[in-house]
Amino acid sequence: MTVDAQKVKKHVFRDVEYNLTEKDVALYAISIGADKSNLKFVYEQNEQFCAIPSMGVVFPYDILLQTLDGFEGLEFDPMMLLHGEQYMEILSPIPTRAKLVTRAKVNNLLDKGSGALLVVDAITSDKETGKDIVFNQFSLFIRGMGGFDQNRSSTAKTATTTTVDLSTPPKKECDAKFNYKTSTDQAILYRLAGGDLNPLHVDPEMSKLGGFDVPILHGLCTFGIACRSILAQYCDNDPSRFKSMRVRFSKHVFPGETIQTQMWTIPQAPNKVIFNSLVLERPGAYPLTGGIAEIIPSSKSKL
Amino acid sequence: MTVDAQKVKKHVFRDVEYNLTEKDVALYAISIGADKSNLKFVYEQNEQFCAIPSMGVVFPYDILLQTLDGFEGLEFDPMMLLHGEQYMEILSPIPTRAKLVTRAKVNNLLDKGSGALLVVDAITSDKETGKDIVFNQFSLFIRGMGGFDQNRSSTAKTATTTTVDLSTPPKKECDAKFNYKTSTDQAILYRLAGGDLNPLHVDPEMSKLGGFDVPILHGLCTFGIACRSILAQYCDNDPSRFKSMRVRFSKHVFPGETIQTQMWTIPQAPNKVIFNSLVLERPGAYPLTGGIAEIIPSSKSKL
Repeated sequence: MTVDAQKVKKHVFRDVEYNLTEKDVALYAISIGADKSNLKFVYEQNEQFCAIPSMGVVFPYDILLQTLDGFEGLEFDPMMLLHGEQYMEILSPIPTRAKLVTRAKVNNLLDKGSGALLVVDAITSDKETGKDIVFNQFSLFIRGMGGFDQNRSSTAKTATTTTVDLSTPPKKECDAKFNYKTSTDQAILYRLAGGDLNPLHVDPEMSKLGGFDVPILHGLCTFGIACRSILAQYCDNDPSRFKSMRVRFSKHVFPGETIQTQMWTIPQAPNKVIFNSLVLERPGAYPLTGGIAEIIPSSKSKL
Repeated sequence: MTVDAQKVKKHVFRDVEYNLTEKDVALYAISIGADKSNLKFVYEQNEQFCAIPSMGVVFPYDILLQTLDGFEGLEFDPMMLLHGEQYMEILSPIPTRAKLVTRAKVNNLLDKGSGALLVVDAITSDKETGKDIVFNQFSLFIRGMGGFDQNRSSTAKTATTTTVDLSTPPKKECDAKFNYKTSTDQAILYRLAGGDLNPLHVDPEMSKLGGFDVPILHGLCTFGIACRSILAQYCDNDPSRFKSMRVRFSKHVFPGETIQTQMWTIPQAPNKVIFNSLVLERPGAYPLTGGIAEIIPSSKSKL
């Protein structure tokens, strides 16, 4: 089984359609913990009814499933694939009713030594108007598939720019934090709302195969909870002020645990929020790390 | 505005279609409090995946909405209509994926003095096979619309049979009870799952018009919670052993309150469960009264 990065880059994904309705929008919000304190996220007749931006990761979900089928030039055991990182950027406001279509392509396949890093780009558009809605980049790590690139340098890259490093939080107490206690049944609801029906999140028999006695929460649910936190803290709960977010999935969460989203801002990086997520019941367990969100300041913004 | 019962009885309802999927089935179960302790109700890949029988009231919901438009021979203010009683009978097991159609007709319009009692029968069938799935009877009380029937006797009916009266519970401690603490957001989830999008259950401005400072829980959510209780206590959680249930909607529930379903059996009425629902936080507040369920005994049944 040789890896052929050139063939992989030519892979053609099937387009993914999503028939979005107000019910989907409200249900997604509820599944990441939005409640009646913000009716505009959960009640379709509210005058300001709108989608929480992190819902943008839901529409291209089937692209992730397609990667499990393997590629010409890259055959692997699906159990070895990890959803490592996610970048999502809002291109225009997410509608509350639309026919959406997602088109995806392989951006890159990188030799990381211990594995291969498959980078997939996906753009979701309004099928009728053609308007682009959201861009997603999935970084998928396939364990044991490295060593295919003879030109790969094993030495660490030397930083060549003076750009501020936002990949780790400042060494100080966070500027803001937001606690959300998940329900023990958070995963059984999120799976229906978020479209990730993987048995790992509901069936103890299957989660045991993955090394967990209890089914674990979806990383993308924690992603949504982080988005809600940033939206409340820095965007006055206005989705039009939320531009993008990037995270690394570093640890599992068990349904019922409390997720604390920790947020920082630094003067050198205006309009950026550095964040991570901590499980309060397990000190040192950070399900999301390296989080960076970009927001759009309002005239009265404190950023 | 005269009431013409004969015209009302000839009313033609529009057929109601419902495109049922596994997601609807699992979501309905979650919205009435089913959780991961019974995966067969919430997880579509479970080998025994099935619908909780009370879901049978969801499919004809649009028939209720149609009644708000009024009838030839019966014009009324929709605010004066109360959903008084509900009878639901399972005719064959509820599928987990099917195209369903509900056909309804007016069964009767009775002069109750202080108002009119409109009785609507609805049968939901599998649209493709024609098989009947569930029968519902809605009893709707329209305040202020009585006095149209000159032949109506104002004296109470005299009991002419010796049939056991099941309309009130035996005067003894219940045989079994089941507590379920609703979430403060139970109604915002139930409305999406159960199809009753009435703003009364989500928008404080609207609930105030109805006399409640806080939006109230759906009576049919309490109905579903009662069904779960009976199913667990007397049917070993096997929907094929649940035949029918009848309730009167007597009081509101605020989301967050604890509903206690109280159940009795009596030797004179084999296979019947008498039940009501009590709000534990408000002694004397019974949202459901006059509950009677019929179950199908198993060979090892204790009934």
